[in-house]
Amino acid sequence: MSAGALLPDLEVIRKDFPILERTLEGGFPLVYLDSANTSQKPQVVIDAMVDHLERHNANIARAMHQLGAESTEAFEGARDKVATFLNAPSRDEVIFTKNASEALNLVARTFPLGPGDRVVITEMEHHSNIVPWQLACERSGASLDWFGIAEDGTLDLSRIDELLSPGTKVVALTWVSNMLGTINPVAEIARRAHEIGAVVVLDASQAAPHLPVDVQAVDADFVAFTGHKVTGPTGIGVLWGRTELLNALPPFLGGGEMIATVSMEKSTWAPIPHKFEAGTPPIVEAVGLGAAIDYISHVGLDAIHAHEVAITAHLLDGLASVSGVRVLGPLDAAHRGGAVSFELAGVHPHDVAQLLDSRGIAVRAGHHCAKPAHKRFGVQSSTRASSYLYTTPAEIDALIDGLEYTKNYFKVG
Amino acid sequence: MSAGALLPDLEVIRKDFPILERTLEGGFPLVYLDSANTSQKPQVVIDAMVDHLERHNANIARAMHQLGAESTEAFEGARDKVATFLNAPSRDEVIFTKNASEALNLVARTFPLGPGDRVVITEMEHHSNIVPWQLACERSGASLDWFGIAEDGTLDLSRIDELLSPGTKVVALTWVSNMLGTINPVAEIARRAHEIGAVVVLDASQAAPHLPVDVQAVDADFVAFTGHKVTGPTGIGVLWGRTELLNALPPFLGGGEMIATVSMEKSTWAPIPHKFEAGTPPIVEAVGLGAAIDYISHVGLDAIHAHEVAITAHLLDGLASVSGVRVLGPLDAAHRGGAVSFELAGVHPHDVAQLLDSRGIAVRAGHHCAKPAHKRFGVQSSTRASSYLYTTPAEIDALIDGLEYTKNYFKVG
Repeated sequence: MSAGALLPDLEVIRKDFPILERTLEGGFPLVYLDSANTSQKPQVVIDAMVDHLERHNANIARAMHQLGAESTEAFEGARDKVATFLNAPSRDEVIFTKNASEALNLVARTFPLGPGDRVVITEMEHHSNIVPWQLACERSGASLDWFGIAEDGTLDLSRIDELLSPGTKVVALTWVSNMLGTINPVAEIARRAHEIGAVVVLDASQAAPHLPVDVQAVDADFVAFTGHKVTGPTGIGVLWGRTELLNALPPFLGGGEMIATVSMEKSTWAPIPHKFEAGTPPIVEAVGLGAAIDYISHVGLDAIHAHEVAITAHLLDGLASVSGVRVLGPLDAAHRGGAVSFELAGVHPHDVAQLLDSRGIAVRAGHHCAKPAHKRFGVQSSTRASSYLYTTPAEIDALIDGLEYTKNYFKVG
Repeated sequence: MSAGALLPDLEVIRKDFPILERTLEGGFPLVYLDSANTSQKPQVVIDAMVDHLERHNANIARAMHQLGAESTEAFEGARDKVATFLNAPSRDEVIFTKNASEALNLVARTFPLGPGDRVVITEMEHHSNIVPWQLACERSGASLDWFGIAEDGTLDLSRIDELLSPGTKVVALTWVSNMLGTINPVAEIARRAHEIGAVVVLDASQAAPHLPVDVQAVDADFVAFTGHKVTGPTGIGVLWGRTELLNALPPFLGGGEMIATVSMEKSTWAPIPHKFEAGTPPIVEAVGLGAAIDYISHVGLDAIHAHEVAITAHLLDGLASVSGVRVLGPLDAAHRGGAVSFELAGVHPHDVAQLLDSRGIAVRAGHHCAKPAHKRFGVQSSTRASSYLYTTPAEIDALIDGLEYTKNYFKVG
């Protein structure tokens, strides 16, 4: 699965994404290398949303009329698609949230913790998998500890015996780092965590776009990802969780659709997944996410991953050819994701991004919502290029040319 | 403001909504009388979302490139539109949530309550403004009390001196009932609540589509509404709150964009509104909501309200002409909203809705997420017809004909 190979029909795929035809200031064609931030959307996703809004729009579940039935079928059909995408044992384990952050907060807010309990995270987490656990520990009196990062950008497992020991109730970590690109040994960590009775929460935000995500194979307890990074719309995320755990958790948000009965004195809860879906859910967003999952599944996650490996190898080769570039994270494309953060000696990442942007090249500069991981490498911020199934080697070449241009502009290196 | 008058350009307005041209099973044209459940979407809203996805899609704030700047401008521009729509003193008081339920839960989860404190709601609340407060009281040890409903469907104010007395910290109520249509005296209740130092939380989900909502005129402390009921998309809601209150509340969801700094040990928070917007927000949904607000503001909320009064008067007249119909809620169209719930003697609401649906008429049947209000009137469920700016008198006539057809079908009355 880790051998790189470009998608054979790459030019056909690119035509599926209308935004890739955009020309930017100065007449430069768009070179979009910010897909780890958000992915672009294929026409089929946009068309599915338009068709829903123009022909089938209605609220779901509550509505007994024809439009309501069509809308409910479209919404619940999207849940089926997500369940298949994740190889979930049951569709009822798929909860629609507003984004991955809400999915992670849902678990952190509702999972029972108390004084003496320990939550283990990692130093390479996105803020969305740090802050909710800090808040949970503050509320409950539990303690927070974490895996560090080794010099090569992989997870430092030297403290694993201490971290995964009795008292640890939750191990929450990212499958693929959004900053370093590191792919973590999540199945192995899940195995060790389960030996001590801890539950494993995986942030799959950067994994789901690029890798086959099989919640049974990896043996996780909760898995979160977000729609807008898998070619779907914003406004929708997914929390998958084991039935028995979801049944045991108290509700998160209260409101319509999550109840069984309501009196002024007391309420009882609907079965999962509805218990965790208060209010009108993201209906047209689910329709878009369903179309997105159909789209990337049709291309094939193995093929998408192989493309990412090939593009990332080309990117790492290119970056190695630019003197003054230091890549933060693993250097072997076969064992990492496609988000590549780097420094360019003597130029602030914001200036790098701005110079690249002046040539139509979109990258991200900053802390990428991963301040601790940056701190680990002694930097405040970095420049990050990230690819997806529509990224071409020529776009990587444009980035590398842009970096040489940037060095010349700032007279460095 | 309460005099009824149909929108003069009603047929032009209808052409803005593509779904209104749909034909349903049996060749019946769609008669959509379920707008209190969700509104239909005008072409301009759909087009704005498509344009964003096809030409400007990028993540916001974090992205320094041209697409990122365009997307951020579109997203923050929508916040400006919402602030103007609500007459908010500051745009920073507008927080984007996933729906009205999340907005209400945000306040209920973060507002400081303790034993001895009292929360006051009403018996006519939507479950989304009951359950979060039940959960908040359960967590904090505060007590919950409520205004009842008078026989005519108005709020029973007989206990107001007792309910709005020292000890009451929060008064949370709906501006317009989604079941009874009652318009509550929210400004007067806010005045009384402020005398005892309580904060006022208004659920404006049914008010925002139909009435000018001026948060300063009504003198509320928090106001929630949802995008999909004001001709915008699902996946986005709004919480407006006073700056000083929002500043004082702890964060709700933790994650990216809501932080100032994050270390593994401790985090600090961004200023409002970002403090309450963890993760990638509903970007394309904000674009859609902005277009929706432009659209209904262009038609004019006063004109929309006058149209609703005229349609509701016609509906109430029509219902009065059908023997066996009992309307639940106020009978004077000039002093109520456009959601009209009723019983038809001898026919279950689900059967009423099904028969109407067989003729293309979409209404809602059930408890409308307002079980306590139904219980108050001794019923489990009801049929509800609800209108919006695109509703015609002829559609109301079709409903009334449909009710006679239903009575004949079931041989009642």
